[in-house]
Amino acid sequence: MLPVAVDAMGGDHAPDAIVAGALLAAESGIPVTLVGPADLPSRVDTGSLPLIEASEVIEMDDDPAQGVRRKKDSTLVRAAEAVRDGVASAMVSAGNTGATMASGLLRMGRIRGVGRPAIAAMIPVPGGTPTVLLDAGANSEVQADWLVQFAQMGSIFAEHRLGIANPRVGLLSIGEEAGKGDSLRKEAFGLLDESSGFNFIGNVEGRDVMSDDCDVVVTDGFTGNVVLKTLEGAMRQVMSALTEAVTANAELAEHAAALLPEILPLQTSLEAETYGGAMLLGTNGVCIISHGSSSPTAINNAIGVARDMVDVDVVGSIAAAIQPHD
Amino acid sequence: MLPVAVDAMGGDHAPDAIVAGALLAAESGIPVTLVGPADLPSRVDTGSLPLIEASEVIEMDDDPAQGVRRKKDSTLVRAAEAVRDGVASAMVSAGNTGATMASGLLRMGRIRGVGRPAIAAMIPVPGGTPTVLLDAGANSEVQADWLVQFAQMGSIFAEHRLGIANPRVGLLSIGEEAGKGDSLRKEAFGLLDESSGFNFIGNVEGRDVMSDDCDVVVTDGFTGNVVLKTLEGAMRQVMSALTEAVTANAELAEHAAALLPEILPLQTSLEAETYGGAMLLGTNGVCIISHGSSSPTAINNAIGVARDMVDVDVVGSIAAAIQPHD
Repeated sequence: MLPVAVDAMGGDHAPDAIVAGALLAAESGIPVTLVGPADLPSRVDTGSLPLIEASEVIEMDDDPAQGVRRKKDSTLVRAAEAVRDGVASAMVSAGNTGATMASGLLRMGRIRGVGRPAIAAMIPVPGGTPTVLLDAGANSEVQADWLVQFAQMGSIFAEHRLGIANPRVGLLSIGEEAGKGDSLRKEAFGLLDESSGFNFIGNVEGRDVMSDDCDVVVTDGFTGNVVLKTLEGAMRQVMSALTEAVTANAELAEHAAALLPEILPLQTSLEAETYGGAMLLGTNGVCIISHGSSSPTAINNAIGVARDMVDVDVVGSIAAAIQPHD
Repeated sequence: MLPVAVDAMGGDHAPDAIVAGALLAAESGIPVTLVGPADLPSRVDTGSLPLIEASEVIEMDDDPAQGVRRKKDSTLVRAAEAVRDGVASAMVSAGNTGATMASGLLRMGRIRGVGRPAIAAMIPVPGGTPTVLLDAGANSEVQADWLVQFAQMGSIFAEHRLGIANPRVGLLSIGEEAGKGDSLRKEAFGLLDESSGFNFIGNVEGRDVMSDDCDVVVTDGFTGNVVLKTLEGAMRQVMSALTEAVTANAELAEHAAALLPEILPLQTSLEAETYGGAMLLGTNGVCIISHGSSSPTAINNAIGVARDMVDVDVVGSIAAAIQPHD
């Protein structure tokens, strides 16, 4: 397969953590190409990884759309162009999320018929299968018919990414009954209920997001992003309070040492980075958006996800579902 | 003081748990009156608690507005009327949240100048002071100027309820910069930034909700309710996974037994019911909305909160702030 293009300059720990993650993926047999400045190999050990040159970086605080428009030789723009031009099979970035999305959207283009691409994030479920949440932040305002497409795309993603047959798709609202929620949710419920091609189970509530009661949770990008960050913050707080609780009392050190190995899998399962990032759905190519704080492991996982999504042709499946009669 | 009117028939464990909670509060010296059917004392031991008779119950699945309109002799309507008529100082219910709100709104009326009442919920923060989140579900669609009033009311509530001087008020959005969010958030940011009378610190994100970085988080009732229920679900999942992790291995039972007392305070601090329920802000009287699953302890705490909010005259403070020049 064509190499996965990895934005070497995106993320809080770029380029070191990114390159280290790319090397891990390459060692495991996945073809990878870095996208970064010409002098990257003199700054960090890039091993034998090929490099697509890009002289600019869209910074975390750059305006996404302006960044993509003005920095035409940026790593993000060049990575997206590599996918568009058939030089790379997918792109991965831990940089500016909005700019990653904008690069994917503007350079790869939308799949025909898709109103708006959406970010599908993986919400960890303790002891269970993650829940796919979309839109996790691409569109702060949406139309009801876009939510129907999010449901369709999310269902395909959950099937390919998590191996769930006939994923249960819920509309995030504030009550389970059909009439609950704001006017957007009421309109979307009606459209979803009439749709075919995915398994709509009705409204779900906040408490269903981190549970096994639902596989795909559909919402607008404002609500989705708030939910995602609320959970991230809460998990960080709880884990830090837990660590403090079990290690605060020196007399209990022995007990803590014995129990921590039992608790650690829980912590790992609650860390979003285990899942290798979110995917932009609806663009003409695979675009994986990793967390800004990504470690080498997270980047390695993200590259693995990119490879998998190319292998199963999730883009082709979405195109077929959105335009079934073409 | 006048007694606190407690809806004996509202909640998953009514009337037993409610009456038990009311008895606990009465024992601690708070005047309490039950609101329930005439035969309540023959069904459950109500001790020497007085009873305001009400022959109907608005059920959990009743439509809130219709329930209040049609069931004029319901416990919720009678409780709100008791406050309106100067027979009770406050009302407490663990019943249908929407109907509790509608009873308070329609029978007590709005404070003059208040566009819409909002539900202020307490979000537990591990090892810290809870965060006030409003609106937690009263208004699924809001106007930007209502959000400004929510900020004002939430600030007064945090000051009186939690003893926080000059509470930090944040607007929940999807980025810290002023321009981030949907059109509602952009408009509200401008209005909040020009307002005086509270300490607006700008946009906050989901990760700030369960943290000590902000005291009051302002949002629409749709987003607020989703956040509240997402956190409730997540905390329940994490705690159950944690309990499982530390008790799964029989050989570790001794270590688990030693450590659980250290972990339990964390669990308690994460349980919303510790805080005795949410308060409806903006009505002409104190209305406390408890969780449907409330235990006697939760009801006792809710009655304590009601008493405190009457004592400090939170309603008068809001009226003065909203109509400062009257």
